[in-house]
Amino acid sequence: MTEATMAVDRVRLRAEQLHGSLTEPLMDSMNFLNEIAGRYPDAVSFAPGRPYEGLFDSAALTRYLERYRAYLATERGLSDEQIDRTLFQYGRTKGIIPELVARALAVDEDIHLDDLESLVITVGCQEAMFLVARALRVDERDVLLTVAPTYVGVVGAARTAELPTVPVADGPLGVDLDDLARTVGELRDAGRRPRALYVIPDFANPSGVRMNLATRRALLDAAREHELLLLEDNPYGLFHNGARLPTLKALDTERRVVYLGSFAKTGLPGARVGYVVADQEVTGADGSVGLLADELAKIKGMVTVNTSPVAQAVIGGKLLENDCSLVAANKVEREIYQNNLSRLLTGLTLRFPPATGVRWNRPSGGFFVVLDVPFPADDALLEHSARRHGVLWAPMSHFDARPEARNRLRLSFSSLPLESLETGLDRLRAMVSERLATG
Amino acid sequence: MTEATMAVDRVRLRAEQLHGSLTEPLMDSMNFLNEIAGRYPDAVSFAPGRPYEGLFDSAALTRYLERYRAYLATERGLSDEQIDRTLFQYGRTKGIIPELVARALAVDEDIHLDDLESLVITVGCQEAMFLVARALRVDERDVLLTVAPTYVGVVGAARTAELPTVPVADGPLGVDLDDLARTVGELRDAGRRPRALYVIPDFANPSGVRMNLATRRALLDAAREHELLLLEDNPYGLFHNGARLPTLKALDTERRVVYLGSFAKTGLPGARVGYVVADQEVTGADGSVGLLADELAKIKGMVTVNTSPVAQAVIGGKLLENDCSLVAANKVEREIYQNNLSRLLTGLTLRFPPATGVRWNRPSGGFFVVLDVPFPADDALLEHSARRHGVLWAPMSHFDARPEARNRLRLSFSSLPLESLETGLDRLRAMVSERLATG
Repeated sequence: MTEATMAVDRVRLRAEQLHGSLTEPLMDSMNFLNEIAGRYPDAVSFAPGRPYEGLFDSAALTRYLERYRAYLATERGLSDEQIDRTLFQYGRTKGIIPELVARALAVDEDIHLDDLESLVITVGCQEAMFLVARALRVDERDVLLTVAPTYVGVVGAARTAELPTVPVADGPLGVDLDDLARTVGELRDAGRRPRALYVIPDFANPSGVRMNLATRRALLDAAREHELLLLEDNPYGLFHNGARLPTLKALDTERRVVYLGSFAKTGLPGARVGYVVADQEVTGADGSVGLLADELAKIKGMVTVNTSPVAQAVIGGKLLENDCSLVAANKVEREIYQNNLSRLLTGLTLRFPPATGVRWNRPSGGFFVVLDVPFPADDALLEHSARRHGVLWAPMSHFDARPEARNRLRLSFSSLPLESLETGLDRLRAMVSERLATG
Repeated sequence: MTEATMAVDRVRLRAEQLHGSLTEPLMDSMNFLNEIAGRYPDAVSFAPGRPYEGLFDSAALTRYLERYRAYLATERGLSDEQIDRTLFQYGRTKGIIPELVARALAVDEDIHLDDLESLVITVGCQEAMFLVARALRVDERDVLLTVAPTYVGVVGAARTAELPTVPVADGPLGVDLDDLARTVGELRDAGRRPRALYVIPDFANPSGVRMNLATRRALLDAAREHELLLLEDNPYGLFHNGARLPTLKALDTERRVVYLGSFAKTGLPGARVGYVVADQEVTGADGSVGLLADELAKIKGMVTVNTSPVAQAVIGGKLLENDCSLVAANKVEREIYQNNLSRLLTGLTLRFPPATGVRWNRPSGGFFVVLDVPFPADDALLEHSARRHGVLWAPMSHFDARPEARNRLRLSFSSLPLESLETGLDRLRAMVSERLATG
């Protein structure tokens, strides 16, 4: 270290001396997409599923912290000393704002928790996914099902927990229940144990598809029949076109759904606060009964100890400022995303007449639209698109191993100002035209 | 969920359907110690290794955030919009304050990084431990050595990553190099792969022992000979009696040491920010060379995505306010801990004359002192001690499986005001007297 230049011998590791997940394409996917965005900072980017930045408010952090302090003083009766301890010291493993998150779930989602102990506040939804994957992985027989195309983060979390993922087709309804039945059957015949199905019912990442109500009910029935847990991830549900649908968790009468919550899109991404509702009962070898959340908290203690109380206070303050309604907090954001979606769909129609062979789906909300193009939309084309045309997007092949995904790309419209969106579409058209001319 | 009370059928899980680590005593250790503290809130607690709370400053969070914003504006030349994006949006996986952490390492520890890319900012030091354990675990042959008695968090992190830990005796010098050689030999003969040795050279948790300089050098030599990485954890190094010793990392000329950093004791526990320096080269199957830190960042992306930029900004602000010196930032804290330690050692001498059979070590810094008592200091006695005598401590058997640990307990003196410390010692004497009278 000091005098490192003098050192003759240095420790050298080979990739095969490190965990196998590290050399898998999945892990490089995220890196590649981030790295290319870093190399072309001036490109218009339809790549990342990030929230809109135009409403970030410099004064908000301090205001949220103050709001949460005031709440601890007035509603919870804490002294100044106790408040300081709450924010500065190590905190409870399950988190310090469960009552506020529970209120928001009741107000916005009609999800009513019997017991605050079923909530664990996590370092973003990503940690929640990892904790659940780790808990459900007993041995090499266990498998996590994921609706394909799949959010890459859940596959990575599961892989990090040694839990293989097996895709189930989404189909036009968001989940193909025949494929689910077939996949479960095949796995069980092979001695495997499908434990749960991961699904984003509202405007899925990356497909943008939303499940209708009948499909939600049918999925709950199918999960019961197949004895699967459902892992419901809901980062985009609030960004709808006016008609919300109940979450799986709100429809769940038998605690079959583990609800994965994110504040990254609706709260503040930089807080890195998420949560998991895991109200499933777990019976110990000694007959004692606890909650799955208790088990997740044990794992969390060994991964991150607890979620930053400062970061939780920021989210707590934002919730309090909006009467614990993220619907209320995101009124303007929803309008922006809906408007961007509408402009994107119109812009695509204007630029890509049927003769181009370019097609796309028409989600009614969320952050994503998927394009089918008459040529492979691979990493090489993305690199070219960035360098030559100044526009970035995400190859669907990163999220979907099926052959039909090779000609697909994902456009995210959430973080772009309108003028950039139009510029980006022009550049996308130039890239497609060039490709059609040379192809 | 809704109408849950009407539900006849409910999902029920059995403990054996969840990851094996969850039923291990280790996982319950932490829970038990936390839970008993929660049940006896009025007890004087020598149990948790928490920083002193008397210096927590309500105004500090806002001040640190403002200081960091000012730095981004003046030293880094960012616009208000870029600053908001830095704090509010998702951030770089490796973190946003590496240059400030690197400056602090140079100023306080004489550790000079060749490359900021070797730093990953983590969700506390705990996440750093998990990432390293995950990276080093290739298959069931791999083993992590830990100096015993051992910080329970590293065993838990390793267990969560399926990496078994094997103890190496500490001995009076902090690590018994003969036992290390013997243990490595036995493991290799059995076809196992000891990958690294975890060690806290400065005022170890739980033993309080500090390695002298000769032992540090000998340990580096031994690690080279045995082809082990060293995982150096250094949460307490600043809380010394006036004479600091170089860290292993500062003495490391061949990048053998992975340095695990914590701001929980020296920065602000509620920020949950730590870091890891992993400057080891990793050669890929294709011959490309990267850093171990790059691999750790890939895993981090799948566990927590990135450490909260808000939390990092708090730590960044505190570093900036103190010219990137945690030594400077902790001048008063060090005096408090040294004074508490001195009072504790004097208080023990006054209350436990040799005839009581109570003995203790005399660390020159840190947070912990270990008592040997002439009776088992087990969980049952702790429960009794809390209920009957109003004093909490930690049974060493939670950190050390060896038989000699059964009659030992750990006293932490870091978070107690002086008057509580004296009261706690009186109660401890009452407990010991009762035990000696009945035993």
